[in-house]
Amino acid sequence: MLVLVLNCGSSSVKYALYDWAKSTILTQGNIERIGAEGGPVDHKMAISDMLSGLTNVDTGVISDIKDIVAVGHRVVHGGDKFNKSVRVTSEVLDTIRALSSLAPLHNPPNIVGIESAMAVLPGVPQIAIFDTAFHQTLPSTAYLYPVPQGWYKEFGVRKYGFHGSSHLYVTKRAAKILGKPRDQVNLITLHIGNGVSFSAIRNGVSVDTSMGLTPLEGAMMGTRSGDIDPAIVGFMAERLEISASEVVGILNKKSGHLGVTSGRFVDRRDIEKAMNAGDEEAKLSLQMEIYRIKKYIGSYMAVLGNVDALVFTAGVGENNATIREGALSGLERLGIILDVEKNNTVRSSTGETFISSPGSPVKVLVIPTNEEAVLVEDVVAILEDRYDEHTRYVYKFEE
Amino acid sequence: MLVLVLNCGSSSVKYALYDWAKSTILTQGNIERIGAEGGPVDHKMAISDMLSGLTNVDTGVISDIKDIVAVGHRVVHGGDKFNKSVRVTSEVLDTIRALSSLAPLHNPPNIVGIESAMAVLPGVPQIAIFDTAFHQTLPSTAYLYPVPQGWYKEFGVRKYGFHGSSHLYVTKRAAKILGKPRDQVNLITLHIGNGVSFSAIRNGVSVDTSMGLTPLEGAMMGTRSGDIDPAIVGFMAERLEISASEVVGILNKKSGHLGVTSGRFVDRRDIEKAMNAGDEEAKLSLQMEIYRIKKYIGSYMAVLGNVDALVFTAGVGENNATIREGALSGLERLGIILDVEKNNTVRSSTGETFISSPGSPVKVLVIPTNEEAVLVEDVVAILEDRYDEHTRYVYKFEE
Repeated sequence: MLVLVLNCGSSSVKYALYDWAKSTILTQGNIERIGAEGGPVDHKMAISDMLSGLTNVDTGVISDIKDIVAVGHRVVHGGDKFNKSVRVTSEVLDTIRALSSLAPLHNPPNIVGIESAMAVLPGVPQIAIFDTAFHQTLPSTAYLYPVPQGWYKEFGVRKYGFHGSSHLYVTKRAAKILGKPRDQVNLITLHIGNGVSFSAIRNGVSVDTSMGLTPLEGAMMGTRSGDIDPAIVGFMAERLEISASEVVGILNKKSGHLGVTSGRFVDRRDIEKAMNAGDEEAKLSLQMEIYRIKKYIGSYMAVLGNVDALVFTAGVGENNATIREGALSGLERLGIILDVEKNNTVRSSTGETFISSPGSPVKVLVIPTNEEAVLVEDVVAILEDRYDEHTRYVYKFEE
Repeated sequence: MLVLVLNCGSSSVKYALYDWAKSTILTQGNIERIGAEGGPVDHKMAISDMLSGLTNVDTGVISDIKDIVAVGHRVVHGGDKFNKSVRVTSEVLDTIRALSSLAPLHNPPNIVGIESAMAVLPGVPQIAIFDTAFHQTLPSTAYLYPVPQGWYKEFGVRKYGFHGSSHLYVTKRAAKILGKPRDQVNLITLHIGNGVSFSAIRNGVSVDTSMGLTPLEGAMMGTRSGDIDPAIVGFMAERLEISASEVVGILNKKSGHLGVTSGRFVDRRDIEKAMNAGDEEAKLSLQMEIYRIKKYIGSYMAVLGNVDALVFTAGVGENNATIREGALSGLERLGIILDVEKNNTVRSSTGETFISSPGSPVKVLVIPTNEEAVLVEDVVAILEDRYDEHTRYVYKFEE
């Protein structure tokens, strides 16, 4: 059973082809420059060319395109309309289209990708998997903002959260590793990549998360500020004589590490290297990120009351021992005791591992994320009609 | 030794006259409608009239205006120029004026008040006490935002914090009550009134605080949103076709409890009453405030690592047992155990008291705030040249 997974941007298509039975990736790649000179004319052409490549007699990995039984699409914003993955129908497409105001840069190319795949692979089931769906279990206390409630009712202003497939994946893995049923596990999941989001997991579901209406809220990131005084948007719009949206653009693209290091660094490896070479701005920037992670950990410990484990994941979370150590230092009284030596040795390649001391009341795990696993699992579960609509995301087939 | 304390708004002057030796307030009041029909023509006239009233043979409280040895002025924004109270000179006035861009609604009337008092009471020392000064001990990791650093260097965009006199007052009192020198006490101070701010106190000084560049950041308040996704400002500016500053105006004046209860409630007593009568919006609003306080408590516990006590203060913090109980519920694993029965009986009138259980590792105190005490203490200390410039706010005379 082969499953194709697509992640369509405005001028790119990331693809991967999975063999479900063998749990392997047959091939993956990234088509870029769609619509630009030298690139495919549109998404449909890009997907069509890519499929031809898959069955190329010399370089292809499969013999017949008909072996692809379904296509899974990553869709950024499901708003509060989708709390789980769904088979795409014309009604579903209309709903995703209607949600474009919440993700104007992401949902429209996602829709183009779905329509293109439907045209190129007629009759093949298309499944939409939403970055926001996992966080639809947030209680209203956590997802509503203290703003005029008309903003929520008329314009959908609320916390949605993102990186759902990653938070879900590490939640499922952590439960397994801890030897607990997923619905009895309390976690703080820390997805730290170029984008960063944290989630408070109670009884296996998300009850709070750091990203909000948009992916700007929350942690300090590579180029995003995360949490700031919202009045800064008005203050800087007046100073720079630009619109609110332009200020928000700067907060998304020229802030975070890039802002603190005066436009020099985004990648935490570069920052750490510069810091070790005596660069004061790089040091400050890393300390700021660490400090803000630490605050979220404390915050979510208060939310959950009782935490089984913290889980570090994604590029930085899996590989950066300095950030992990800094974020956890001084938290012994909260029950978090790091094994500093072990932590220093752990990278993505280490695989799933504890980095807490054996006696630490709250465990600390590093779990390499695998969002695609969630996507493929969802696709197959929906195809085989095993997807549990009532118990969100507690996949029976994996337990 | 009589000290006059003034708090000047754009059309109002709050005043209080203290007898330092006797530790008593001789009189206090609020002059309003300055510049409006039926009110005093300007601040100078308002202060002059008020002083005449103080020495009125029938209704006055003092015999000679010359008994006033100094005037203390509350000034909202000292930026990063003032880390302590200062005697007003023309240079100080210029600096406060230059900081007006950071507090355009507050610093200008503060300046008018100082100039008026200087004109009416020539030769009498004028002392400026800043809401921001106590938080000038924040480390750069906490006070800098992850935004382009030019915003800080050119426009002063950083966290300043407010309610400094209140956080300072309860810090000093808590140290006394806990029987520790102030420079050895770690606290989380929770100033909850119509405006709300929290502070993480390490070794007696502020190392983080919830309000930021402006008093909008942080907790959910009566009419202010506190922390939200900053992208909401851009999102709503586009939807409502208004400027960023107008959105920020709504976040300041029509959000918080007022926003969540559809414009009905600001006062927590009204909200609690409505909640008890079955009003779902009121219940949600109170739960949202409680939830956000709880998150800050956890966050600052992580910042401090080791906390001696939490301190509730200001109108709501001193009087609302429901909010205190809600914010502390489920934090037993973090070492906070509330004496629920005792908590229910504690109001401002109770005075300083513990509300934690005797065995609680982290103590919980209710301490009625007294910002004026800090103001008058500062004025007298500066007058008597006992104000310690090197150890910020660690008043020798009170230890």
